Amino acid sequence: MPRSAIKSIQALALVETGAADHFEVSDAELAIACASHSSEPEHLAVVEGWLARLKLSPADLECGPMGSIEETVNAELIRSGAELTRVHNNCSGKHAGFLATALHMGEPTQGYIGPDHPVQRRVLGILEEMGGVDLSDAPRGRDGCGIPVIAMPLEAMARGFARMAAPAGLPPQRAAAARRITAAIEAQPMMIAGRRRFDTIVIKATTNGPKGPALVKTGAEGVYGAILTGLGVGIALKIDDGARRASEVVMAAVLKNLGVYEETFEPVIVNAMGEPVGVIRPGLPL
Amino acid sequence: MPRSAIKSIQALALVETGAADHFEVSDAELAIACASHSSEPEHLAVVEGWLARLKLSPADLECGPMGSIEETVNAELIRSGAELTRVHNNCSGKHAGFLATALHMGEPTQGYIGPDHPVQRRVLGILEEMGGVDLSDAPRGRDGCGIPVIAMPLEAMARGFARMAAPAGLPPQRAAAARRITAAIEAQPMMIAGRRRFDTIVIKATTNGPKGPALVKTGAEGVYGAILTGLGVGIALKIDDGARRASEVVMAAVLKNLGVYEETFEPVIVNAMGEPVGVIRPGLPL
Repeated sequence: MPRSAIKSIQALALVETGAADHFEVSDAELAIACASHSSEPEHLAVVEGWLARLKLSPADLECGPMGSIEETVNAELIRSGAELTRVHNNCSGKHAGFLATALHMGEPTQGYIGPDHPVQRRVLGILEEMGGVDLSDAPRGRDGCGIPVIAMPLEAMARGFARMAAPAGLPPQRAAAARRITAAIEAQPMMIAGRRRFDTIVIKATTNGPKGPALVKTGAEGVYGAILTGLGVGIALKIDDGARRASEVVMAAVLKNLGVYEETFEPVIVNAMGEPVGVIRPGLPL
Repeated sequence: MPRSAIKSIQALALVETGAADHFEVSDAELAIACASHSSEPEHLAVVEGWLARLKLSPADLECGPMGSIEETVNAELIRSGAELTRVHNNCSGKHAGFLATALHMGEPTQGYIGPDHPVQRRVLGILEEMGGVDLSDAPRGRDGCGIPVIAMPLEAMARGFARMAAPAGLPPQRAAAARRITAAIEAQPMMIAGRRRFDTIVIKATTNGPKGPALVKTGAEGVYGAILTGLGVGIALKIDDGARRASEVVMAAVLKNLGVYEETFEPVIVNAMGEPVGVIRPGLPL
């Protein structure tokens, strides 16, 4: 299941329906619609501002309240005694995008996370088209933020990312939407994750690189996607055991081999005394 | 690497050297020497009291300060603004035991975590004897709490647990030490982990069970051990991917098949809205 890795593809609906134009959605808002954000103050401000412009409130979000997915930010939230709202949910930007689409299309906002709601049916159709795959019989479940999640082959995910990266062959309206989304992520890398997060760091580091940006996006359970707009390439990977500690290291190695990301990312494991006790690196040459 | 799963075997040195008798080590202290505790107030009190009786201070512990390994307890520690000390380290009881042994044997307390310190050499010898394995060429590293960690076959770990469970064939002094340790864990299940932790819950639930207690003990990276004193059986398992979410579920299934633990332990995964979105269960019959 692609989980959060495909939010940029899900966001196509927000642009294609005209909702993004109608509500004058900014780059930051469009990027956070594609994000698993860290609930840092900047993220909360963008989602809250967007909801206010839609004349909606956090209660209209149908994702649950939760702390930050980044441990240090979460500790700060606990320390501050801040009330955790639905805006804190790392998917709140995606949900704001769903709400904007529903409003613009005259669809009910309540229940927008249901698999039969037009917002979700529209996203499913886009996923099938971008992945080149029939998902009508695909296993489905419910994601951590409440929306439907549909199993799809890694190859279909990669094809979807490749089409985002090289949209020339897509219908003009979709190609324009893909370009607007990837440009927004490239312009607002902080919005996609967080200042200390791998996704944000890699996008920032590659934007002016020799082969163009790597718009990387993590998903739960070791899923990882990348849209390489400079090369016209899409990457999808999944770590069988669901561990992000491996997915980031493998993605970094793949990007390095492609000449897109120049850093070696092999995190040192440090114990409670601050002493190095191990290192995470790919076990096979990539 | 067996990580924390073998703390009860490591604790044999504390008893066999006479240190436990000399310092009148209580069941709670002996149990916490075998623990990966949750840094709950009860745990901190036992380790602090023990150190005070040894006329030592938390600074003599050579494990680093860290928060609780249990998320809810850790959030409470952050909220309270408590200073994290070395006593909070989940291994602090084991370290207090090492210090007691060094003191009793007239060995330097400083540097007791070093691989060449007599405390660690003694523990290594016991591991080899209990596991029936020569570890002189075994890969070694440094554990999260600073002590040496030595790779050993799962079979040797299981043999060590089986000998703890059925000590009749061991030399009398070791057999007595094994019995004292398992009795202490059985008497003080809260000390081994924490009130909401799987280990503590299983020990409590099985103590008066038809086939006797399952003294289960988790280790990092998906290692799990069990000493079944009623059956005279030892169990060692390791989840390849290092995930505890699997190790606890598998251990529960194995114990159920043995008739030791009667509960079915298949945790429901709940999303941020509190809705069930999945379940963790063994993929194969055990």
